[in-house]
Amino acid sequence: MASSHRPAGNGLDPFPADREHELLTPLTAIRAIAEILRDHPELAPAERMLFVERLLAEQQRLEQCIARLLDRSGHPP
Amino acid sequence: MASSHRPAGNGLDPFPADREHELLTPLTAIRAIAEILRDHPELAPAERMLFVERLLAEQQRLEQCIARLLDRSGHPP
Repeated sequence: MASSHRPAGNGLDPFPADREHELLTPLTAIRAIAEILRDHPELAPAERMLFVERLLAEQQRLEQCIARLLDRSGHPP
Repeated sequence: MASSHRPAGNGLDPFPADREHELLTPLTAIRAIAEILRDHPELAPAERMLFVERLLAEQQRLEQCIARLLDRSGHPP
């Protein structure tokens, strides 16, 4: 991608591509891990716990990303 | 809250409070469910599966909310 900003076709502030990537990566990881937990009930408890810990880490990453997004958008500190 | 928009102290487009709520509610639910899965390894498989299904539903809700957010921000359709 040549630019980190896309033109906003609707007159609103464009969404930076890198910020979009920051949002979508943990979001997709959360879905993937939850699907593994759903589709593999035979996982050993220790294996399952590793996936749950990873899920929590991705949730935290997403939460931080959304906090920055809200801050950027005029959210009071 | 009197208004659905907060003033933007940084000159950027303000983030609507209802949209913020839409983002934070599933995000918080995902963390709560993942913490239950982490802290209660003794859950019966059927109970655990209910939590995992709920987690997937919240992830989908969050994904739709983020998709609308990106669309609003000039993301190409």
